[in-house]
Amino acid sequence: MKIPKAIQNLIESFEKLPGIGSKTAQRLTFYLLHVPQGELDGFANSIQNLKKGTIICSVCFSDSESDPCSICANSGRDKSIICVVEEPLDVLALEKNGRYKGVYHVLHGKIDPLNNIGPEELYISQLVSRASGPEVKEIILATNPTMEGEATAMYISRQIKNQNPKVKITRIGRGLPTGADLEYADELTLQRAMEGRSDY
Amino acid sequence: MKIPKAIQNLIESFEKLPGIGSKTAQRLTFYLLHVPQGELDGFANSIQNLKKGTIICSVCFSDSESDPCSICANSGRDKSIICVVEEPLDVLALEKNGRYKGVYHVLHGKIDPLNNIGPEELYISQLVSRASGPEVKEIILATNPTMEGEATAMYISRQIKNQNPKVKITRIGRGLPTGADLEYADELTLQRAMEGRSDY
Repeated sequence: MKIPKAIQNLIESFEKLPGIGSKTAQRLTFYLLHVPQGELDGFANSIQNLKKGTIICSVCFSDSESDPCSICANSGRDKSIICVVEEPLDVLALEKNGRYKGVYHVLHGKIDPLNNIGPEELYISQLVSRASGPEVKEIILATNPTMEGEATAMYISRQIKNQNPKVKITRIGRGLPTGADLEYADELTLQRAMEGRSDY
Repeated sequence: MKIPKAIQNLIESFEKLPGIGSKTAQRLTFYLLHVPQGELDGFANSIQNLKKGTIICSVCFSDSESDPCSICANSGRDKSIICVVEEPLDVLALEKNGRYKGVYHVLHGKIDPLNNIGPEELYISQLVSRASGPEVKEIILATNPTMEGEATAMYISRQIKNQNPKVKITRIGRGLPTGADLEYADELTLQRAMEGRSDY
């Protein structure tokens, strides 16, 4: 059976997305066949205008509508604390509870030699020069607690210490996540949780 | 933090798709931010042209580029056997190994009283009149082996028998799927597998 070209095209577009296999791509495409054309046009417009309506903040390199972004432009945010994250989505995750009052720095990736991503591919030099600013007191390294995230944190920490030894550098807390079960936690997580214990 | 409107729009479009939650919608959207504009335009075009490039075959009601569809128009297919399926995707699944040489009839759903889907919402009357054709010898009921699929099969079977008692009506085989483990199969599947045993 020849799949209609219009259907095949959309299946192939969906398959390019991360985490979407050929079965899911088919299911989504056939679902959209039953959706009114107006909604399809809206969906198509959102995709076409995604990048046109978005720029990267020249201060923190987060995705934004304006430059500087709403966080960097907000006078209520504490510019003396910079939280360093790998991806723009991480900013969203940290902003969800609204407790953090500092600013961010988005690296747009992590040092990953196996995939040919070195420090110069990331916004690390910009971070180092930001960290030399006189108002900066603390850099929170909030890269993911993975092998690459730890390596990235270590590299950044050294770079900043070379440039500005007075700034305080911290790493986001590692240990057991809320709701976890000690019994099922892996060894490294338990070790980190023990090392990271605090007064109670 | 205010999420840029362009990003928020696309997240909301993705969230409307079946099986895509808010986290996946965010992940897909932020992934697309790194994709070249040309690819985004291609994706958007595929969505906009999905329904414009597709029609429903007036014989079997499958999604198609032409009317009748490539299967119904193929003189090599055996028009005396009609396989009845719930959705166009089921045709794709059955066509994958290319062993079935008959034609199809797509119901576009199943009888589902809890969701207000009765027989008149599906292409059942068209099937009954197709089944009265002099060349038709067998109707294979290949609706899903679920409660609704079984009810739909039973309803269709009665309707066709009323109209044309001579046509042979069969139900697709039910039992253990390839690679399954007897130990983990549910009772009903085991019962159906025993009932459906064949000479060896």
